[in-house]
Amino acid sequence: MGEDATPQVSSRATELAEAAMAGDRGALARLLTAVENRTPLAEAALRRLYPVAGKAHLVGITGPPGSGKSTLVAALIGVVRAAGRAVAVVAVDPSSPITGGALLGDRVRMQSYAGDQAVFIRSMASRGHAGGLASTTTTAAAVLDAAGFDLVLIETVGTGQSEVEVAAAADTTVVLEAPEMGDEVQAIKAGLLEVADLVVVNKGDKPGALRTAAQLRAMLVPTVARTPTDRPTPKRPEVMVTTASTGEGVPELLAALDRHRATGRAAESGGARRTRAEAQVWAILGERLRASLVAPERAGTTEAVLEDVAAHRLDPYAAADRLLRELTAG
Amino acid sequence: MGEDATPQVSSRATELAEAAMAGDRGALARLLTAVENRTPLAEAALRRLYPVAGKAHLVGITGPPGSGKSTLVAALIGVVRAAGRAVAVVAVDPSSPITGGALLGDRVRMQSYAGDQAVFIRSMASRGHAGGLASTTTTAAAVLDAAGFDLVLIETVGTGQSEVEVAAAADTTVVLEAPEMGDEVQAIKAGLLEVADLVVVNKGDKPGALRTAAQLRAMLVPTVARTPTDRPTPKRPEVMVTTASTGEGVPELLAALDRHRATGRAAESGGARRTRAEAQVWAILGERLRASLVAPERAGTTEAVLEDVAAHRLDPYAAADRLLRELTAG
Repeated sequence: MGEDATPQVSSRATELAEAAMAGDRGALARLLTAVENRTPLAEAALRRLYPVAGKAHLVGITGPPGSGKSTLVAALIGVVRAAGRAVAVVAVDPSSPITGGALLGDRVRMQSYAGDQAVFIRSMASRGHAGGLASTTTTAAAVLDAAGFDLVLIETVGTGQSEVEVAAAADTTVVLEAPEMGDEVQAIKAGLLEVADLVVVNKGDKPGALRTAAQLRAMLVPTVARTPTDRPTPKRPEVMVTTASTGEGVPELLAALDRHRATGRAAESGGARRTRAEAQVWAILGERLRASLVAPERAGTTEAVLEDVAAHRLDPYAAADRLLRELTAG
Repeated sequence: MGEDATPQVSSRATELAEAAMAGDRGALARLLTAVENRTPLAEAALRRLYPVAGKAHLVGITGPPGSGKSTLVAALIGVVRAAGRAVAVVAVDPSSPITGGALLGDRVRMQSYAGDQAVFIRSMASRGHAGGLASTTTTAAAVLDAAGFDLVLIETVGTGQSEVEVAAAADTTVVLEAPEMGDEVQAIKAGLLEVADLVVVNKGDKPGALRTAAQLRAMLVPTVARTPTDRPTPKRPEVMVTTASTGEGVPELLAALDRHRATGRAAESGGARRTRAEAQVWAILGERLRASLVAPERAGTTEAVLEDVAAHRLDPYAAADRLLRELTAG
């Protein structure tokens, strides 16, 4: 299982990888497109880039619509650049690759840093990945890491499970909240807060911001998790207040990110890096498995088994076991 | 790979499955808890129930927060019951199993049908499933199907990829919209519309509802998909207007659901059932694979490989191939 790329693809991948590491932004953009489309080129390039990656600080930034993520990311870019560091943004875009319409915000932000080699902003579509969003985003972050960015911000709309998983795959996860959100959003927030290393109440100039921050601090008293999760350790994320539109609190946010990197989950062995490695390897294993089940020599059997499940003649567990026997037999 | 349940678990599973099919709602609730927690009991019970399932109409209902999903589902339950049919609801709850707080709405709705054996409402937590949300929800729907419900409504907050996938796994997918939503929500909508078989503009008594419906109809002109997806066929979902709070348009919605079931994607061979079977089998394969990699005889090797990936000494593709060799060798 696991076909090798053709020599042509391999040599093109090496060429693009070398160019991206040497600062060629066009090559970098082409590699990210390959990652997004999951082409063999992406795999070949990642094999070259992955050993060089591992130096950047990966920061997930997530929050419900209207919490001001884009504005905060723009303000954070400014502060990071003022500190002389290079920063890349992967914005997971909830809009559709089919019906078009990327979020306009990114284009506007990109323009204001046009010509600055140390800033790179990239939107990734979130649809049509069939569960592979976290894997694709993590791979994109590794490419940007290898290309030499000190900080890679991964921005997602934190209202769905996949989007939260994407943010949680970072070394440090920032969850944004806006003052006074509605009831349904409150419920979403509860799920989001679980993955937070830092909670930021943005729109600090709005009435209720300080009260929201105080409520969150009260809510985030460390408790032992009641259900099994990947992170059983009780933790109490810091709650900060920012006003991204004026920049207030943003330098403090960068300082908190740096502190977390030095001392938090990002620094733990068996922490964020281990979790991320595991998720990536499982995702690739799943793809390999699927590819070998639909390969010409097994496609007929696989198809017959799936048809039996669709018709309820066979239960999906029995089907999975039958397919596994096919794989290990051949 | 794929351990069999102990005889005790098997016999308990058979007992609960028989009871659930005979109308015991307590047994049904216990089975759904097992499905949610992915216990061996759930697998054993599904093996008994799956061959009996396949008769219910599975309807996904999704839409952004504030589009009035819960109110519409409640109104739809009333119309379905008036038609003498039994209906179950699986509400995928975005709130956290850890920080608590299920959506109150469900409890309120449940009370108003207390004592009606032909209505069953169940919330499922959406966090902590590590990509298995669609699989768990599909399994829960199969259990309710086998228990004899004519209609199984799967309600999700359609703002994340997983949640959309859950809704899209149904025979018929209804996407709700409310008049006049904000910009970010518009972008989310584009992704949602792709999976819609029926689009419902709810809150039809609000200003702009008819205009929103007209805009959606104009937007939904059939086009050939520009990117590869699982559903390449151009389709043009029907756009309807409802006012769930007064019940206006809800009988028409049920009629449209029935029409879609008879003639739409639900009726196609290779359609929704085939897609769902495939997704279920792949999810189970992934779980089996993972279980055998962390089984005692392989755990040491697996751990060493994952540590190497975390430390960037090994790329994740090479790691996946090494683990696959372990599996097929032993």
